[in-house]
Amino acid sequence: MERGNIPRKIKGFRDINAGMNEVRQKIIRAAAGVYRSYGFEHWDTPVLEYAEALGKYMPDEDTVDKGVYSFRNPEEEPVLLADGNEMRDAQGQAFMEFHPLALRYDLTAPLARLYAEGLWAGVRRKEVTESNAPLFRRFQYGPVYRYELKLMPGRFREFWQLDFDTVGTADVAADAEACMILCDALEAIGLERNTYRIKVNNRKVLKGFLASIGIATDEQEAAVLRVIDKLDKIGWDAMRLELGKGRTDSSGADVPGLLLPETTVEKIIDFIKIATGVSARKRVIERFEQAAGQNDIAVEGIRELQKMDQLWESLGFDEERIVIDPTLMRGMAYYTGPVFEAESLLSYQDEKGKERKVGSICGGGRYDGLVEKLLGLKVPATGASIGVDRLAELLNMLNPEGAEATGPVLIAYFDDQLQNEYYRIARELRQAGIDAEVYVGNYKGFRKMKKQMAYADSKNCPAVVLFGMDEAAKGVASVKNLKLGKKLADTISDKQEWISKVQREVPLGELTNYLREQLNLEKT
Amino acid sequence: MERGNIPRKIKGFRDINAGMNEVRQKIIRAAAGVYRSYGFEHWDTPVLEYAEALGKYMPDEDTVDKGVYSFRNPEEEPVLLADGNEMRDAQGQAFMEFHPLALRYDLTAPLARLYAEGLWAGVRRKEVTESNAPLFRRFQYGPVYRYELKLMPGRFREFWQLDFDTVGTADVAADAEACMILCDALEAIGLERNTYRIKVNNRKVLKGFLASIGIATDEQEAAVLRVIDKLDKIGWDAMRLELGKGRTDSSGADVPGLLLPETTVEKIIDFIKIATGVSARKRVIERFEQAAGQNDIAVEGIRELQKMDQLWESLGFDEERIVIDPTLMRGMAYYTGPVFEAESLLSYQDEKGKERKVGSICGGGRYDGLVEKLLGLKVPATGASIGVDRLAELLNMLNPEGAEATGPVLIAYFDDQLQNEYYRIARELRQAGIDAEVYVGNYKGFRKMKKQMAYADSKNCPAVVLFGMDEAAKGVASVKNLKLGKKLADTISDKQEWISKVQREVPLGELTNYLREQLNLEKT
Repeated sequence: MERGNIPRKIKGFRDINAGMNEVRQKIIRAAAGVYRSYGFEHWDTPVLEYAEALGKYMPDEDTVDKGVYSFRNPEEEPVLLADGNEMRDAQGQAFMEFHPLALRYDLTAPLARLYAEGLWAGVRRKEVTESNAPLFRRFQYGPVYRYELKLMPGRFREFWQLDFDTVGTADVAADAEACMILCDALEAIGLERNTYRIKVNNRKVLKGFLASIGIATDEQEAAVLRVIDKLDKIGWDAMRLELGKGRTDSSGADVPGLLLPETTVEKIIDFIKIATGVSARKRVIERFEQAAGQNDIAVEGIRELQKMDQLWESLGFDEERIVIDPTLMRGMAYYTGPVFEAESLLSYQDEKGKERKVGSICGGGRYDGLVEKLLGLKVPATGASIGVDRLAELLNMLNPEGAEATGPVLIAYFDDQLQNEYYRIARELRQAGIDAEVYVGNYKGFRKMKKQMAYADSKNCPAVVLFGMDEAAKGVASVKNLKLGKKLADTISDKQEWISKVQREVPLGELTNYLREQLNLEKT
Repeated sequence: MERGNIPRKIKGFRDINAGMNEVRQKIIRAAAGVYRSYGFEHWDTPVLEYAEALGKYMPDEDTVDKGVYSFRNPEEEPVLLADGNEMRDAQGQAFMEFHPLALRYDLTAPLARLYAEGLWAGVRRKEVTESNAPLFRRFQYGPVYRYELKLMPGRFREFWQLDFDTVGTADVAADAEACMILCDALEAIGLERNTYRIKVNNRKVLKGFLASIGIATDEQEAAVLRVIDKLDKIGWDAMRLELGKGRTDSSGADVPGLLLPETTVEKIIDFIKIATGVSARKRVIERFEQAAGQNDIAVEGIRELQKMDQLWESLGFDEERIVIDPTLMRGMAYYTGPVFEAESLLSYQDEKGKERKVGSICGGGRYDGLVEKLLGLKVPATGASIGVDRLAELLNMLNPEGAEATGPVLIAYFDDQLQNEYYRIARELRQAGIDAEVYVGNYKGFRKMKKQMAYADSKNCPAVVLFGMDEAAKGVASVKNLKLGKKLADTISDKQEWISKVQREVPLGELTNYLREQLNLEKT
């Protein structure tokens, strides 16, 4: 028994074909264009980072070693002290280590590293302080990595994010702007108004409310948030049980509860149900005030929501686009204030014909503590992230034909004597702006016409140019219009008529113009 | 002594700022557009692969574990046999393993995996054979990873490549085309004709020649190729010594020689010097024929070069763009026939004022054995790769201003009461196609005007809009044209005159049009 070397991808990873790449690039171009128009600069950071520099925050996880691809640097390096100097023993010998590295699990942690790295020396020299920490607005896109133990269908361990962030301001105008940017970006990408909605909440409001009913430690609060965050998946009843005595889930496993007193549980549930049936943002804010207006932190959060609401209103972003949703938590432990999430309102039928919601397509929030972990300086920040691949799937669902990339005009290969001529024709087409490829498939013996046509078909070529010795003698080329052919195949049954419409002899000198007209016709 | 968590990148990695990203994206857009126009499809593969699937080829290395970032998959998986079934012990228990993973070191090995994976089952079922292996033309770009032990200045462990490949043809027309694609791509990127040259060679010619003088085993041949490949770095004399008795390098280290007899060494050197002073491709090919025309493999290689030369000639690619260079080896062990490399003919002054050549900017070749390692089917292939980052450096050198990205129009922030108005103005500008950002910097107390202007400067903003309570009362905004300001600062010494040219009061209703005109003026 000898082990094999089977060509395959790692489980949870995938290849992206031309059609999917076209959709992905369209999303990136459109959203990046919107980000840029708001003054965000395009930066890029490495895929690989010191695990330490990425910090201890992972979505839905408390430790960096869970859910992350991590390994030791092959290069041995000195261990550094907090002042940046090397750690040495009594003999002056530096402690060496193969530092743990990690594939980035999002683009926010690397942003915090990038920002902190640029200021670190200045902070040591006391030149940079909290009151003069610079403003930095950047966008970034690329793959991120999550080692998810249980890989759900449609989930991947490598996927693309498209983030924008503002570091260096506590003004929630930046949060309000982030929500508007998401609206503009989603519409630039091609989503119609009213097929998505931005849901917004402010953690400070719930935090203040929880404190007012006796849930005051960070641990208690985090535990409650985690349970509320599951509402979408488990529903109200299960959530109630998990806040209280616990429950048995559908698989029969025991889920321990937080053991909060029943009255506390009911107060929490009443609070997050506060906006049920209310869509007007001002009304939701009023109810927040009634329920939590006696707690300072809650009041701060409410004031922030009011300011955001005003900005949205003055710019015409009403509840059609942005709503306040007290049930929205967002799992990531590092959010400190406003959180937001874009939800697609569309649904689709799954394999079993069951109606399913598309759900969350992007989200973000304010994270005022993230930079501090690396820089020792409290620098407030806020931002959001578009899940490129999930959005690509949504666009494919809305427009399945969009996922097919258009191929080049294929110059069929008949005769070795004409090879130079084939390349000359292709070059002429290209110079006129028409993509063109000379078929160069397997050269053993013969290039079969049938294989060439199948190749053109598989690449979604719009047309094939046929040019053999007969055509060469007559100074013409035959052009077969594949796109038209497919269309007419449905309506024309007579083969001669079909061929006469789909295939045409064109004088060589007119080939470029003829193809240009044909291809433009198709676009209209 | 407590260890610190210093925000920093891994050694050999780097962040890419907005200006560099603009250059990088420009290169990708231009070259990808050319690749696409030749019929190559855009595919993408994971950054992380099974180490095994990447194969044993590394540039300049014989083993995959040298020079690669590699680690064990955190997921335990069954070991597979060559037939794809799980390897089991006598009790039927599957052998499990944490499979070695690796960050891709180039885009060619993943292409071979992608192609082989798609056909693997078909090959097992005998449906896919050597004579019907499909044609596949794809381009791909993205980061690749090399763990270089000695990190030279200007070299990085993460860098971007931009590849195109044709899999499934033995016809060297595809190799000839690849060289023309490189010319078209480099010119689309912005290199001027005659500032670069494509050098081409065919390994078969040297291989045949070496066999004819008694160097016949793969190991001997590979050793000779490796020494010749160093010619650019070490020069003729050192190369002569390394083929023979060995030498001592500048650091005093012993470099063992291949111990070839002196006459053999001279024959090799004469052969690769064969084209010295000869630029006409046909003349070089004639000399190849004279020197190696008695060996079958050499003759095959010479015929291939002749065919390529004909194609180039018929399409107008003369020696101004493509030359044959017998000294060109290309280090990668997997090349089997034609190899090519684009060289920039420009030079620059290094920090010490010494004139240095830019040198190689992209390259490629035919690798007919790579897919076979994974698929057990000989599928010929050829392609090339552009080093995106090296080319970006070259473009920056040629046009230093191009590396600076243009920022948005900055709306300065004077008064909280006007905040909504600032955002309204910015939105109006954006709707007219002008990038605009409301300054939102540190909100503690105050937004200092000086800081705002410095921010606009650091982002290369073309203009700043000043709008305070005085302006609001008058219904105007002041516009400061920063770009014009920089220009005029050199020629105008009178401050009043300078301000009158650079700063202007504009009625709010005319702001958009005014800025559009100002910004367009700058572009011309």
